[in-house]
Amino acid sequence: MRFPPPPPSSLRNGETPPRMPPGPYFQSTMSVQKLRRFNTLILVFRLASFCFSFAAAIFMLTNSHGSHGSHNSPSWRDFEAFRFVLAANAIVALYSFAEMGASIWEILRGTTLFPETVQIWFDFGHDQVFAYLLLSANSAGTALVRTFRGEDTCTVSNTFCVQSYISIGLGFAGFIFLGFSSLLSGFRVVSFILNGSRFHL
Amino acid sequence: MRFPPPPPSSLRNGETPPRMPPGPYFQSTMSVQKLRRFNTLILVFRLASFCFSFAAAIFMLTNSHGSHGSHNSPSWRDFEAFRFVLAANAIVALYSFAEMGASIWEILRGTTLFPETVQIWFDFGHDQVFAYLLLSANSAGTALVRTFRGEDTCTVSNTFCVQSYISIGLGFAGFIFLGFSSLLSGFRVVSFILNGSRFHL
Repeated sequence: MRFPPPPPSSLRNGETPPRMPPGPYFQSTMSVQKLRRFNTLILVFRLASFCFSFAAAIFMLTNSHGSHGSHNSPSWRDFEAFRFVLAANAIVALYSFAEMGASIWEILRGTTLFPETVQIWFDFGHDQVFAYLLLSANSAGTALVRTFRGEDTCTVSNTFCVQSYISIGLGFAGFIFLGFSSLLSGFRVVSFILNGSRFHL
Repeated sequence: MRFPPPPPSSLRNGETPPRMPPGPYFQSTMSVQKLRRFNTLILVFRLASFCFSFAAAIFMLTNSHGSHGSHNSPSWRDFEAFRFVLAANAIVALYSFAEMGASIWEILRGTTLFPETVQIWFDFGHDQVFAYLLLSANSAGTALVRTFRGEDTCTVSNTFCVQSYISIGLGFAGFIFLGFSSLLSGFRVVSFILNGSRFHL
């Protein structure tokens, strides 16, 4: 039961990259510069995603215009779609904040926070799932706020409707940047599978 | 201006695979069998996605209970979220039907309908975009139909609400299977980049 030895110079999936660079082009100064630029781009997208979804969550959280204890003053608590918007934006803001930390760590130290395989798949998977979550929440919020037009909810408190629109708009902006992050982390996954390393862009 | 020749035995992205298999493991009978099983799995997911989204579109299209020309009989035309649900499901049904054709072509003839690079990126990109579209439409529809509970829309015509729920539920099932297709076509993209061929699973 002896297996034939693997062909030389083939790097299979999941293998750690060899300590010694196999070629003169591997992880050169050029490549390190490119990687730093790539990581900075990811950091910018994470920052934008954090800012927008955090602002959306704050806007929705303060969207409770129960002025003078009137009975029919609308609040986000009364609508499950708005609760969903708040929850999704808060989750994405927390996640983006944590990912910003991981990204800064990687830029400063040159290594990933968790082991490389875990980090790359974690980033990509969560980007995908949270992008779907945020889009779903914002679509539900949009559909809800559009039903208010004919009713007296907006007549009673126009601020409530405007603030809802702003919150959902900010949420969509957060989704766009989370989508960009997802593209880049997907690219990192492919690059990792391709080269066994997140270097070599 | 002479460029150095590329190193041997390196297959870069976008290159067509060489005619002659480079190793004894490449595109063997085992690999062809695996590819056929993989393509059949894709076909099954496409079929399920088509069936669910087509049924969802039909359910929404017939969701117009204007009985005896009464004034307040609800119809899907009156709600933009429902128009969105119908449009998204119809688009996904059409797309899945076309992709089923391409998949059957590939199983029967052994080659892709379009050139391989185009086909693989086309599949993956459209899977991603249409999955987002379908999820967004179904979330909006859900948020709308949940607002009917307290109002008299469901009291006037309970069938309208039930049929809306069924249509949206079918749409979510279509989204799940489209998501599975998207995973598989993403895997094909990675496999294509990795090996320069969609073979070699």
